[in-house]
Amino acid sequence: MNYFDDMKLESKPTALDIKEAAKRIQPFAHRTPILTSQSLDQFTGNRIFFKCENFQKVGAFKFRGAINAVYSLSDKDASRGVATHSSGNHAQALSLAAKKRGIKSYIVMPDNATSVKIEAVKGYGGEITFCKPTLQAREQTLEEIVKNTGAVLIHPYNDLRIIAGQSTAALELLEEIKDLDLLMAPVGGGGLLSGTALAAFYFSSGIKVIGAEPEAADDAFRSLNSGEIVPSVNPKTIADGLLSSLGTLTFPIIREYVSEIITVSEDNIIKAMRLFWERMKIIVEPSGAVPLGALLQHRNRFAGKRIGIIISGGNVDIDKPPWMSIS
Amino acid sequence: MNYFDDMKLESKPTALDIKEAAKRIQPFAHRTPILTSQSLDQFTGNRIFFKCENFQKVGAFKFRGAINAVYSLSDKDASRGVATHSSGNHAQALSLAAKKRGIKSYIVMPDNATSVKIEAVKGYGGEITFCKPTLQAREQTLEEIVKNTGAVLIHPYNDLRIIAGQSTAALELLEEIKDLDLLMAPVGGGGLLSGTALAAFYFSSGIKVIGAEPEAADDAFRSLNSGEIVPSVNPKTIADGLLSSLGTLTFPIIREYVSEIITVSEDNIIKAMRLFWERMKIIVEPSGAVPLGALLQHRNRFAGKRIGIIISGGNVDIDKPPWMSIS
Repeated sequence: MNYFDDMKLESKPTALDIKEAAKRIQPFAHRTPILTSQSLDQFTGNRIFFKCENFQKVGAFKFRGAINAVYSLSDKDASRGVATHSSGNHAQALSLAAKKRGIKSYIVMPDNATSVKIEAVKGYGGEITFCKPTLQAREQTLEEIVKNTGAVLIHPYNDLRIIAGQSTAALELLEEIKDLDLLMAPVGGGGLLSGTALAAFYFSSGIKVIGAEPEAADDAFRSLNSGEIVPSVNPKTIADGLLSSLGTLTFPIIREYVSEIITVSEDNIIKAMRLFWERMKIIVEPSGAVPLGALLQHRNRFAGKRIGIIISGGNVDIDKPPWMSIS
Repeated sequence: MNYFDDMKLESKPTALDIKEAAKRIQPFAHRTPILTSQSLDQFTGNRIFFKCENFQKVGAFKFRGAINAVYSLSDKDASRGVATHSSGNHAQALSLAAKKRGIKSYIVMPDNATSVKIEAVKGYGGEITFCKPTLQAREQTLEEIVKNTGAVLIHPYNDLRIIAGQSTAALELLEEIKDLDLLMAPVGGGGLLSGTALAAFYFSSGIKVIGAEPEAADDAFRSLNSGEIVPSVNPKTIADGLLSSLGTLTFPIIREYVSEIITVSEDNIIKAMRLFWERMKIIVEPSGAVPLGALLQHRNRFAGKRIGIIISGGNVDIDKPPWMSIS
């Protein structure tokens, strides 16, 4: 039996859960800086405040959720270790969080994962089990590991502790910047976006939250339109952190607290990513550039607004930025 | 007659000059964030606090000095405009500072300057005069402009207002981070290093200041050893912001208040630059990577120290980082 069996549908973190998460992660996570750029403001016609989770530990906001989840466990539960399947930032985040608490982490990774990602997880002490690169193989392998070890499953996004952890990025932004009109975050599985929406709901008066999603992986857009989860089927986008589809916990929160999902072309994602590198001197991964891409694509819709954007992460091969790919 | 004719040798900004500069630049300059990185700490064996002037306006600390100089002028002097020769960050910084005050800036640039730099200066409203790419041609052209327009010459580093402005980066670092053992800055003409050294002298108790310089442009190292200014002759280094030689104002300050100049190989400059991009997710130009390069090159000398490093800037062609150059 794992954590999800107990979970009621449509439950969500409370304001207190988020405040407690903020306290819990504080000794471990960076309070990341908020940067502004006059040239990007001129480019988009907005006043933008960028919350730089690309500077977070492991290079992504994912560390917030992972450390909150790991330190939410009782000593007894924690002693059994934690487990997940992920080939991306959540794998690194969970291994590092487990290492901090001195417990084991079991990570299921597809056997085609890049060596960089494998080495990163190993570097944080994660115990890797490889499987075939299908969702079915990943889930089955994970299930066996959980059965054999008793480890606590920590899902990358469909988990209240993860959602509460991710919401602390927006909480910090709201604490420091007043009078925002809008908050924007990218959406993949919806952990960051649902957390951001809850933070705005609890801790601001009336700031709208907008999710930004690649056109080529627009399951959140379609799910919100149809009123039920419509998973992506084999999506192909450069924003490789946003391939997941919404979960049973993230979808209802997003449906209730997010105003809108805006989809963004691959071209505008790449343009936005390049602007970050060139104008702001920060390395942002494609997924992290999607909200700025949305503002480029809809230049007039939000003119003059004060907008907070969560930059989700900066884990990208610096030798192969997409504008350099040989076509 | 220009500003320098009045200047006594061995004069230096006072503590009050620096405090006033800090107040003067505050409405215009970013208070840049200070970042830390556990992985870089592990790499070097230190605890490093990076003052990120790559996020400063125009992408470099140079804006601090320029805005301080421009706003130090009386209304009458300011109305004549300001002038300099520079193909780099100072040109952009001075044009933007002049634009903020609503006065003219006259920039002498070599006719082989890259179009990116020319466009940047034009974008800030600088009036460019091109000349042959020799120091003699630059100085002569500038002299004529000053004669014809009455503009106030603002030298890139050999100017007390510039030095006082640059020192505010270290001042902010010292205000936020306590118990540093060392402060490091790169050294070219010495504006940043002399300002950093004065800030440490006035506003800390006993923090040592070390300058970091490319081996291939080691005029500061040789000048300190010989006790007199030994200019670089046609230096070739990837750190193209550090080609200048020390000035008559910066040299005496550096001689008195800087403990040591450490020289760094081109290889270690590139390695350090790559670490910034890859591990810290920030774009740093070669010149800004020289102090970290010094720590890589002398890994054991400063083991366990708490070190503040001024990252001087981030203006680099993101399509051509040096580790990608085809050899």
